[in-house]
Amino acid sequence: MALVVQKYGGSSLESAERIRRVAERIVATKKQGNDVVVVCSAMGDTTDELLDLAAQVNPVPPARELDMLLTAGERMSNALVAMAIESFGASARSFTGSQAGVLTTERHGNARIVDVTPGRVKEALEEGSICLVAGFQGVNKESRDVTTLGRGGSDTTAVALAAALDADVCEIYSDVDGVYTADPRIVSNARKLDQLSFEEMLELAAVGSKILVLRSVEYARAFGVPLRVRSSYSNDPGTLVAGSMEDIPVEEAVLTGVATDVTEAKISVIGIPDNPGEAARIFRVLADAEINIDMVVQNISSIKDNKTDITFTCPRANGPHAMELLKKLQAEGVAENVLYDDQIGKVSLVGAGMKSHPGVTATFCEALRDAGINIEMISTSEIRISVVLRESDVAAATRAIHDAFELGGDTEATVYAGTGR
Amino acid sequence: MALVVQKYGGSSLESAERIRRVAERIVATKKQGNDVVVVCSAMGDTTDELLDLAAQVNPVPPARELDMLLTAGERMSNALVAMAIESFGASARSFTGSQAGVLTTERHGNARIVDVTPGRVKEALEEGSICLVAGFQGVNKESRDVTTLGRGGSDTTAVALAAALDADVCEIYSDVDGVYTADPRIVSNARKLDQLSFEEMLELAAVGSKILVLRSVEYARAFGVPLRVRSSYSNDPGTLVAGSMEDIPVEEAVLTGVATDVTEAKISVIGIPDNPGEAARIFRVLADAEINIDMVVQNISSIKDNKTDITFTCPRANGPHAMELLKKLQAEGVAENVLYDDQIGKVSLVGAGMKSHPGVTATFCEALRDAGINIEMISTSEIRISVVLRESDVAAATRAIHDAFELGGDTEATVYAGTGR
Repeated sequence: MALVVQKYGGSSLESAERIRRVAERIVATKKQGNDVVVVCSAMGDTTDELLDLAAQVNPVPPARELDMLLTAGERMSNALVAMAIESFGASARSFTGSQAGVLTTERHGNARIVDVTPGRVKEALEEGSICLVAGFQGVNKESRDVTTLGRGGSDTTAVALAAALDADVCEIYSDVDGVYTADPRIVSNARKLDQLSFEEMLELAAVGSKILVLRSVEYARAFGVPLRVRSSYSNDPGTLVAGSMEDIPVEEAVLTGVATDVTEAKISVIGIPDNPGEAARIFRVLADAEINIDMVVQNISSIKDNKTDITFTCPRANGPHAMELLKKLQAEGVAENVLYDDQIGKVSLVGAGMKSHPGVTATFCEALRDAGINIEMISTSEIRISVVLRESDVAAATRAIHDAFELGGDTEATVYAGTGR
Repeated sequence: MALVVQKYGGSSLESAERIRRVAERIVATKKQGNDVVVVCSAMGDTTDELLDLAAQVNPVPPARELDMLLTAGERMSNALVAMAIESFGASARSFTGSQAGVLTTERHGNARIVDVTPGRVKEALEEGSICLVAGFQGVNKESRDVTTLGRGGSDTTAVALAAALDADVCEIYSDVDGVYTADPRIVSNARKLDQLSFEEMLELAAVGSKILVLRSVEYARAFGVPLRVRSSYSNDPGTLVAGSMEDIPVEEAVLTGVATDVTEAKISVIGIPDNPGEAARIFRVLADAEINIDMVVQNISSIKDNKTDITFTCPRANGPHAMELLKKLQAEGVAENVLYDDQIGKVSLVGAGMKSHPGVTATFCEALRDAGINIEMISTSEIRISVVLRESDVAAATRAIHDAFELGGDTEATVYAGTGR
């Protein structure tokens, strides 16, 4: 008998009818002889509706109260799923994050899980009940106040519970039935992967794959919790994320897939005095503003005036703020000019095979050249190559690379409407 | 400096705009130098909407999960009011029933408060914060599960907190601005009372006044918590419910008001063998079905066949069930016939003055006689006279009695749309 943790996204729960379908699936898993723990996000748009309501009563709602408000959404969805499960003849008990022992840091709105003590969940499992735990929420140790875990919080709740309960697998259900070699909406013959390593999934998540949130994959990797990405609308086994890259025999190591990202902007800081510490000043200012910078390129300073240029990417959402800060530095003489460009896209190739197959970078660049696509920036990791190019070139570049490395399958990929929360 | 507990009903909170108005009032009370604890019901129709949703996923939702679902409503409204308060520059902290130490019996859906340990509320008050406590909910001691308090639960939460915190007053806000000598919708010159005793309020609540729920008045009386019934839409001081009837000097004791009730049905059990225990059997069957019976009349058994009749009233909602049970007894020979009548109404006169003013009953009956209204049943307590009559006669009877005892004022009473939850 296995212990299975399942997580369902908001779109899988947006109506009473969908809630009953999810409950049916949960009961089926139980009837197969498994212990089942389920983590549900809030129904459909509940969270957004509550955020709207909050903004109406207070444009800058206090974080503690906002957490108290938002966590009601998961309370409701989990209780409703529990009711639906009981209507199918199985026993179910729902718990709040606090009742399930999800202990977090103090910080409201974006708390981190520090410990999980699921004593009540274990008791209920021993009594033969299916356990539902409200995702996205916990309680902070010091103040005993309700906290929320920020983006991807429900995935993280599920993984953390799976780790604390030593579950055999953590299934993440959304409306996508697995991890693909490329976005099926861009590449028609994209192939669904049966399995990939944590490192590969981390790289994919880091460079734009929306299927799993980076932090939940990091958590799963740290505690060795096998993840399975599945669709709540099909019985497809989905994609297993497990094991370390190191375990993949070099001969079998292959390229995993191509990820695309059009959410970043490019900022170039021109004419920086090439002295130690100048670049540090720039990045410190951005770090203090909690702006994540991604790819960074610094050219060799030109001999004549001993100045250098630094170009980097950051989320478009942070672009204006970053520019404001950098213009200040420019005024202080830290740079001669600052340029902003949000018409860019990022295309990345990820795969453990890169280590053992030389020439991947060459083939990568040739593929783009043959497609007549210009590379503006390039950065690589041990198992990843990323390039920045015009946003209008992203689709063509993705197809070119996908074809060049023969990642496609023989069948057309199913295309889904969107992805769950 | 006083400690004031305020309770706001759902209709006072049904929109962001109303929530902000309530918050303004709360902040004003704080600025007058009071410590303030607020108990809010769920917004508008939230509870009914959640009940609908529950019925869609499970026609008979498990009580534990239903409580988990419904309590989310008060969590949201209290958090929103806290946000609104902070937008007016005051500090606020919202607490769930569990966080506020509202401990209840195990029973879900209709739990009773067994203890209130508001340690966290006290701390927050000492820090100068306005405290909001989610009404209608608590946590049961054994299972540590979330419970709801049933009808009037938020009023009871407010009174219980006021008692535990030794508050100076518990203000119950709804869209009615006080306790009237009669329903202003029936009697145009009904007069708002400035004050009445707990006993008088208990009698009024018991015989149909919807303004305060019986159990919350009982709780307030037991712990000597002064109640003030006020409207959240006016600054009228409302009506104070405090003190014992015994404290009212006999000379000043007067009649309080006329209450009407058209929610009951009349059941007559005919031809009961007049032996000890026959009546007991009837009432036991109804008691076991948790059907509250109200007025009871038994006539002298007729000499010839030594049989008797019993007539009583009970909520119309329970009528069909009661008839089903009594028909069974009839089949067992406990009665010759059972008659049902739900076209009745109850009109009651309440007042401490009754004890010291003889002839009240006579005047009462004469007033109805002069109005040509027939009395079907009559029952009295030390400070109350109630009669059952045709539902169609209720309005006329109420006016007749109100006039006969000169309870009216000189001004027209303001009429309100409905009453808060």
